[in-house]
Amino acid sequence: MASLSSSTHFCSSSSAYSNSSSLRFNHHHYYISNLEFSAISPKHLGSKKISLQSNSRPSSNAILMQEGAVARTATIVENEPPTKKLKDGLLSASSPEKHKEPIGFDVNNDKSTVSITVVGASGDLAKKKIFPALFALYYEDCLPEHFSIFGYARSKISDAELRNMVSKTLTCRIDKRENCGEKMEQFLKRCFYHSGQYDSKENFVELDEKLKEHEGGRVSNRLFYLSIPPNIFIDAVRCASVSASSVNGWTRVIVEKPFGRDSESSAALTRSLKQYLEEDQIFRIDHYLGKELVENLSVLRFSNLIFEPLWSRQYIRNVQFIFSEDFGTEGRGGYFDNYGIIRDIMQNHLLQILALFAMETPVSLDAEDIRNEKVKVLRSMRTLSMDDVVIGQYKSDTKGGITYPAYTDDKTVPKDSLTPTFAAAALFIDNARWDGVPFLMKAGKALHDRRAEIRVQFRHVPGNLYNRNFGTDLDRATNELVIRVQPDEAIYLKINNKVPGLGMRLDRSNLNLLYKARYSKEIPDAYERLLLDAIEGERRLFIRSDELDAAWALFTPLLKELEDKRLIPEYYPYGSRGPVGAHYLSAKYNVKWGVDE
Amino acid sequence: MASLSSSTHFCSSSSAYSNSSSLRFNHHHYYISNLEFSAISPKHLGSKKISLQSNSRPSSNAILMQEGAVARTATIVENEPPTKKLKDGLLSASSPEKHKEPIGFDVNNDKSTVSITVVGASGDLAKKKIFPALFALYYEDCLPEHFSIFGYARSKISDAELRNMVSKTLTCRIDKRENCGEKMEQFLKRCFYHSGQYDSKENFVELDEKLKEHEGGRVSNRLFYLSIPPNIFIDAVRCASVSASSVNGWTRVIVEKPFGRDSESSAALTRSLKQYLEEDQIFRIDHYLGKELVENLSVLRFSNLIFEPLWSRQYIRNVQFIFSEDFGTEGRGGYFDNYGIIRDIMQNHLLQILALFAMETPVSLDAEDIRNEKVKVLRSMRTLSMDDVVIGQYKSDTKGGITYPAYTDDKTVPKDSLTPTFAAAALFIDNARWDGVPFLMKAGKALHDRRAEIRVQFRHVPGNLYNRNFGTDLDRATNELVIRVQPDEAIYLKINNKVPGLGMRLDRSNLNLLYKARYSKEIPDAYERLLLDAIEGERRLFIRSDELDAAWALFTPLLKELEDKRLIPEYYPYGSRGPVGAHYLSAKYNVKWGVDE
Repeated sequence: MASLSSSTHFCSSSSAYSNSSSLRFNHHHYYISNLEFSAISPKHLGSKKISLQSNSRPSSNAILMQEGAVARTATIVENEPPTKKLKDGLLSASSPEKHKEPIGFDVNNDKSTVSITVVGASGDLAKKKIFPALFALYYEDCLPEHFSIFGYARSKISDAELRNMVSKTLTCRIDKRENCGEKMEQFLKRCFYHSGQYDSKENFVELDEKLKEHEGGRVSNRLFYLSIPPNIFIDAVRCASVSASSVNGWTRVIVEKPFGRDSESSAALTRSLKQYLEEDQIFRIDHYLGKELVENLSVLRFSNLIFEPLWSRQYIRNVQFIFSEDFGTEGRGGYFDNYGIIRDIMQNHLLQILALFAMETPVSLDAEDIRNEKVKVLRSMRTLSMDDVVIGQYKSDTKGGITYPAYTDDKTVPKDSLTPTFAAAALFIDNARWDGVPFLMKAGKALHDRRAEIRVQFRHVPGNLYNRNFGTDLDRATNELVIRVQPDEAIYLKINNKVPGLGMRLDRSNLNLLYKARYSKEIPDAYERLLLDAIEGERRLFIRSDELDAAWALFTPLLKELEDKRLIPEYYPYGSRGPVGAHYLSAKYNVKWGVDE
Repeated sequence: MASLSSSTHFCSSSSAYSNSSSLRFNHHHYYISNLEFSAISPKHLGSKKISLQSNSRPSSNAILMQEGAVARTATIVENEPPTKKLKDGLLSASSPEKHKEPIGFDVNNDKSTVSITVVGASGDLAKKKIFPALFALYYEDCLPEHFSIFGYARSKISDAELRNMVSKTLTCRIDKRENCGEKMEQFLKRCFYHSGQYDSKENFVELDEKLKEHEGGRVSNRLFYLSIPPNIFIDAVRCASVSASSVNGWTRVIVEKPFGRDSESSAALTRSLKQYLEEDQIFRIDHYLGKELVENLSVLRFSNLIFEPLWSRQYIRNVQFIFSEDFGTEGRGGYFDNYGIIRDIMQNHLLQILALFAMETPVSLDAEDIRNEKVKVLRSMRTLSMDDVVIGQYKSDTKGGITYPAYTDDKTVPKDSLTPTFAAAALFIDNARWDGVPFLMKAGKALHDRRAEIRVQFRHVPGNLYNRNFGTDLDRATNELVIRVQPDEAIYLKINNKVPGLGMRLDRSNLNLLYKARYSKEIPDAYERLLLDAIEGERRLFIRSDELDAAWALFTPLLKELEDKRLIPEYYPYGSRGPVGAHYLSAKYNVKWGVDE
């Protein structure tokens, strides 16, 4: 049992969606045998569209919904011992003990393999996030027994050169540095490189051959992580689909934002993707959804009675979603300039968190149930009007002898760019729960601090006996729940409290939970969680196409108006608190942006 | 202004009940000029009963209510500058600046004086609590300009000897040790001693003469602190009343528990007291009400919206009031044996806290409004039945070679004593808010730890999506609010939280506020607060006679039954967690006693 508990210590991702009856050790998980299903229903083989194998949808009752939503399809076999499933499955070989490890994978893992191909392996994201996340998963025994990692990019380098590049960014978990060097070596041995063009079927055929070689006749599951610019997206999907999809396992593709620039381009992208992929093969990543405290949002809300009566317009005065960076584009504004802060942060990260925050209680924690509720929120939202938005762009500033550049000083940015590097917006959800409650968003670059947080400001106490002890600023005296996503993950609840001592002075104190103090373990990077989920076929934290459509529908009219009218952003100094317009916007709804004293 | 803020820093007791508009510096307070009122309505002079002067009731609209309750009587003059009041008052002499200091006293303080007589000055309470509290108040500039302190007891000692005795127990506040020696010297100079019998009018006449001497013709306000055994209580009150009451200011008497042993004896005591005192001259002290976190209970509840919807049977599953000491009677069980833990702790301290916890929102924070609501709670309570009570008595135990004594090993305790040193009880409030919610109490000596706390256990989450993550013990997964009164004052809220990491393990974390960490200042002793309130005539934290009656009505039938039937307590080892009967009692109501993991 030692190995069981040690592997669940970190790697128990699948237990999230399981019926585990143990608080500490969640061993149960969905036993979805890919082999079984691929053998039983290889229904896409020979279908008219050119498509990757989508055998991960294991049962025959898959229903493709109009909005691209897939109804709950998994034939879930739960709470039965692995051995039972082995007997029912087509293949059965090794001992039950063996099948228990690693946790979280189908019991036939010794006969299946996962190949993870990072398309765009030499890019920044690959180096900084994807390879380190894969190593962390490997280090924690979260990857299946048989796996290979392929880097795919245009540059002609060798496996050794890729390994060298990758090794430079790998780090070991703070709390478990033992055997790190050894583990790293083992990991790197399973990393390979294939050079090719993103639009070359031939190159992908070559990749396919290499993959097969490594798969060694096992059931082949293939995950493609597309870490490439949007303009070559579809080419790569087509090539991978036609030339390198799995013939007997699943094939999945992780795609990164941008998912278009507006409703039309997003819809076009979705249409193109769906020429080659089923909706459930597409894993649209929003890495904010993989962040620890965003994951915890639903837990907080739905497993604590104390929040249950509070979570509505009756008690909540406003909700704020704040994202700020304390640096600018720093010479890398080329991509950003084409999108701007609204598309880069608001329309995806902040809106996704808002939807999770505001959704009705889902029927279950299953991916489709949660995503159904999120879509409902997005579709209940009032289209954004220009009156409810403030945009800004940072300008140069000199402080303490140091001159910080303006956005347009960035050489990769056009001198006359009007792209917003800051935006604030007031949004409204026109449903019974949230009618009239302002949901404020604020996102910006080159501000005075770096943080991402959710702030829930509660209403004033009706008939407050202590009003006179608070002075004139009653807003300051209301309760506030703060969920700090980064840095220094924390949850705290501002309450009014009597200052100890004779007399009756009140102040606001925090009931707080600082993760650093409570949990000694390093918090995993969002990419680890999301990669593991993609490997396991868990879609809860990925964005469904109808969610994406609704999100674009909300922002597209505004974005068009901004660009058509070439509206001039409010300039704010680098390192400042952003345009004052944001304060006027919030004041319009009697809201003050939350700050910590 | 420096002196203002420094004096309010600590000594702003009166601001509790004021309309201050400043959160930080509450300078306003009730300006009740004793001189004014005593000159206008000396209505008790010449009344038929022998009575102390009750001139602190300042206005003529005082209404004596049936239950001994006094309707709101103070003619409050607020938010006007002191100078205004000076003009309106009868006396006006010194400059306005002078009148501002010390804060919290009537503006004519240079013409009035307070004499505090500690009757029973050589007792333990006087030495350990009363004199140190008086010094702390003096140190913090909370005492009026003119004051004297008199020790009164039978032993024939000199002023110097009293000072020597007192000085041994004085300590200075941790955060302000400067000038402590100097301050102590000044303080001791104002302490005097008078030797006398507690039932001798002559001795009190002598005291009266000494008091007059020190009062030097000023308006004389007199506070008697009766720190003497119950059997000489009334004698001392009679003598003080007849021979040493103030002729032109107020006279107040602080009395300590025991207030009788049951309804009858308590009523008799009240009747006797009222032969000599008006209800509003009697300050029945329950020092638990002066504890910081008990004071904060109402602030927490009524100034934080988040608790508003939660505070009822709809969300609260049960409430627990826990008091435990990790030592026994240790050779001083004589007094205790006649009362037992139910009278010593439950019927007063715990019940008072319960009433504060459960009361409806009062009309205001005024003493009578709060006490009216507390009485309503007590009167709504179901009479305690034996089925809902468990009693215990500690027995000897040997641990690590050390033998701890049994209760009956105490030489001051009869060998066959059945007096409970432990009790647990389940109480119910039969009103709309609390119907069916068990209020559990547990109090004991010689237990494994020392603590006093309130624990609020919330209900299960209805339709909890995460139930499966909690395992079988759903009770452990509910929210709990803990208010730790002592030691290490703290407030924390147990919430369910996702354990950081891949996967979905939940645990309970605390949103917490540890006073030590948040507030650097030493928390004043309960006696400081209560003494100051008595000097200022603030009755909020003292027990009114109808409250006392209701409290006794609740416990008397049970106490009688216990004693009539000579019920045998459940014996528990010294230093243990107490009798298991307490667990069976709580289990009967599906409650688990709260503990911190």
